[in-house]
Amino acid sequence: MTTSTPPTETSDIPALCRALADQAQSASQSLCTVPGRVRDGALRKIADQLLASADALKQANALDLAAGKDNGLSGAMLDRLKLDDKRIGSMADAVRQVADQPDPVGRVLEGRVLPNGIQLQKVRVPIGVVLIIFESRPNVTSDAAALCLKSGNAVILRGGKEAVHSNRAIATCVQAGLKEAGIDEHTVQLVPTIDRAAVGELLHMQGLIDVCIPRGGESLIRTVVEQSHIPVIKHYTGNCHVYVDAKCDDRMAVDICVNAKTQRTGVCNAAETVLIHKDAADRGLLKKIGQALVEKGTEIRGCDRTCKELPDAKPATEDDWHEEYLDMIVAVRVVDSLDQAVGHINRYGSKHTDAIVTSRLDAADAFVKRVDTANAFVNCSTRFSDGGVYGLGAEIGISTDKLHARGPMGADDLTTYKWVAYGSGQTR
Amino acid sequence: MTTSTPPTETSDIPALCRALADQAQSASQSLCTVPGRVRDGALRKIADQLLASADALKQANALDLAAGKDNGLSGAMLDRLKLDDKRIGSMADAVRQVADQPDPVGRVLEGRVLPNGIQLQKVRVPIGVVLIIFESRPNVTSDAAALCLKSGNAVILRGGKEAVHSNRAIATCVQAGLKEAGIDEHTVQLVPTIDRAAVGELLHMQGLIDVCIPRGGESLIRTVVEQSHIPVIKHYTGNCHVYVDAKCDDRMAVDICVNAKTQRTGVCNAAETVLIHKDAADRGLLKKIGQALVEKGTEIRGCDRTCKELPDAKPATEDDWHEEYLDMIVAVRVVDSLDQAVGHINRYGSKHTDAIVTSRLDAADAFVKRVDTANAFVNCSTRFSDGGVYGLGAEIGISTDKLHARGPMGADDLTTYKWVAYGSGQTR
Repeated sequence: MTTSTPPTETSDIPALCRALADQAQSASQSLCTVPGRVRDGALRKIADQLLASADALKQANALDLAAGKDNGLSGAMLDRLKLDDKRIGSMADAVRQVADQPDPVGRVLEGRVLPNGIQLQKVRVPIGVVLIIFESRPNVTSDAAALCLKSGNAVILRGGKEAVHSNRAIATCVQAGLKEAGIDEHTVQLVPTIDRAAVGELLHMQGLIDVCIPRGGESLIRTVVEQSHIPVIKHYTGNCHVYVDAKCDDRMAVDICVNAKTQRTGVCNAAETVLIHKDAADRGLLKKIGQALVEKGTEIRGCDRTCKELPDAKPATEDDWHEEYLDMIVAVRVVDSLDQAVGHINRYGSKHTDAIVTSRLDAADAFVKRVDTANAFVNCSTRFSDGGVYGLGAEIGISTDKLHARGPMGADDLTTYKWVAYGSGQTR
Repeated sequence: MTTSTPPTETSDIPALCRALADQAQSASQSLCTVPGRVRDGALRKIADQLLASADALKQANALDLAAGKDNGLSGAMLDRLKLDDKRIGSMADAVRQVADQPDPVGRVLEGRVLPNGIQLQKVRVPIGVVLIIFESRPNVTSDAAALCLKSGNAVILRGGKEAVHSNRAIATCVQAGLKEAGIDEHTVQLVPTIDRAAVGELLHMQGLIDVCIPRGGESLIRTVVEQSHIPVIKHYTGNCHVYVDAKCDDRMAVDICVNAKTQRTGVCNAAETVLIHKDAADRGLLKKIGQALVEKGTEIRGCDRTCKELPDAKPATEDDWHEEYLDMIVAVRVVDSLDQAVGHINRYGSKHTDAIVTSRLDAADAFVKRVDTANAFVNCSTRFSDGGVYGLGAEIGISTDKLHARGPMGADDLTTYKWVAYGSGQTR
């Protein structure tokens, strides 16, 4: 197969978006009765298509890379954009892994026979039509399509303009897979224009689109939330914390702080602030952790005591406690108690991922219960909050919302439920 | 105990609301570690307080009833407002039933050991601070307080002005029960002013209030949604359908249509439209159902065929298919197929409760899968979609949203979850 020719840009954006939403709604309604094995079969065919189309994908990607260079994208951005055989292989693997997961649709969450004989069940069903708005990395196209198809939803994908050719080529593979499996191709639609007006139009299609999931920087998400008339599942910043408790394994504390901060800085589950109990600081752990971070090339913004003990540290301002650096910078603060640590995290954190390093069982329990966060970790790095690590297959994002879905979101989180009752003529 | 004197009205609404939200947030944080048996103990003490304060409650209620009469409230409204010994007993019973339910907090929804040895669990936790905005019926005060306390949430209650004295007297009982159990009294707070500006203020307290649940008419809910910066769980209209399939027990079809429409008309799970398959109409069922409804005093707005067969019917307009009458009026339409019935419901329905009467297993299955509704019923009246009937204890509302919670909402639906991971020093 060959890459499809990019569809003609249209000037009638409202009509285009209305057609996309109508087609998605109709595809969603027919998908309700498509069995899991057919959806999984389509996923495997999509994986095959991706591998078989590696050359076409790389050619399309080359156009994006060339345009990216012309437009002065950074090396890191170009790297995120790039598709090679290894990455195409990973995309196909991710789709296959999603196919291998249990089917969320139709799962009975609870059920009972009511006293009047009615058989009541709470059953997982697809949400309906999902809108995904994302930036740069083209693998989101196949990941999101796979998770939506797995969970029985139709999806409208709106990718970033820098990956437009790559996304179109991937969508072509997805649609070929759907067609082979006999599933309505409108189940997965890529918005065929890069005109920004399309986003605004789609976000007003309540009644046709059930939920929007934006993936990207905070400003993208804020813009979507402001414009949307559709419920949005948000993935804001990851201002993650490591709290080093009074009693802990010192070696473990150093390792976890260094790993959480420096192993990969540009990701949402990297730590941004280290909080250290004063007793731990008193026995030299502040110095040890600080030095280990500085040796890795990390800049430290510290509280008064931190600045006193670590000559390289700069004084932290109020802004530093709020900041998601996504860089080799860390805020460090000595706290008087677990209470103060919890208070700090609940005040400044972004409810993403927060860890305690402790050897005290009661401290671990109190931290886990009291920190208002999607991912509460004991004695391990914040870097583990990830749908893949959690065994969810691919992830559609990491929700910092508290309603519907929280933390890494997989196919289950793209479902809702309905109450189904079978009676034999009961009236009230 | 005696009814508390109504708090002084304040002119500094923003400061008042900020204090309510801060106190609720702080109560919510201490409630995280209060065991279920203590929360259940408080619920039982609240039930005792309600019974012991019956006289005070009736006195307070008499003030509301007198004001209601002066303000020309209808007989039905006055009846909804009225508290007598029987209703006070029911309120106490509802609170005790909530206490008897299993504790949703801390329930492990799933869990596994990851390949690296980390023990991962997905655990139910309270949402945090809930804002309930409701109209007229004072029992909502104790029901909502009970469900929020059960699920470990702090709650801010804002009742209608017509029930202000009754709500204050009930809240006094709730706070006495909390105090006896040693729980922060700010766990349940009634907004002490009837100034509407307070609602607007509270709806802007994102970060302090986690979710808003409005209970009342559609216009109240739309106003809340428009103003709110906090996620809102919505309970819009109940435009419920009964679809009478080609093959069914005719007697059952008549009984279910009559019960769903007429047993109680002013409630959201009453039927508003009856759809009848043409084959059923051909064998005389349209006439039978129509006559039975007319005999009960129901006005019929029908399609062409309905008007031809039922001389009492008026022609239905497009508006009739959309209408939630909440009255002795029903829209009736003959359809050619189950497909057309599903299409009608998905187009005009409000995703609340929709029933099929059929003897065909494949029709039941297709209807249940394809109708996009919170409650899909087979061979029973729509009137059964109710938290009490479903065994959820009291209900906080019936969600017509598809995200987070759908249909009757109990204590479970007032929780979110967090991912908790216990490691032994794992880094990535």
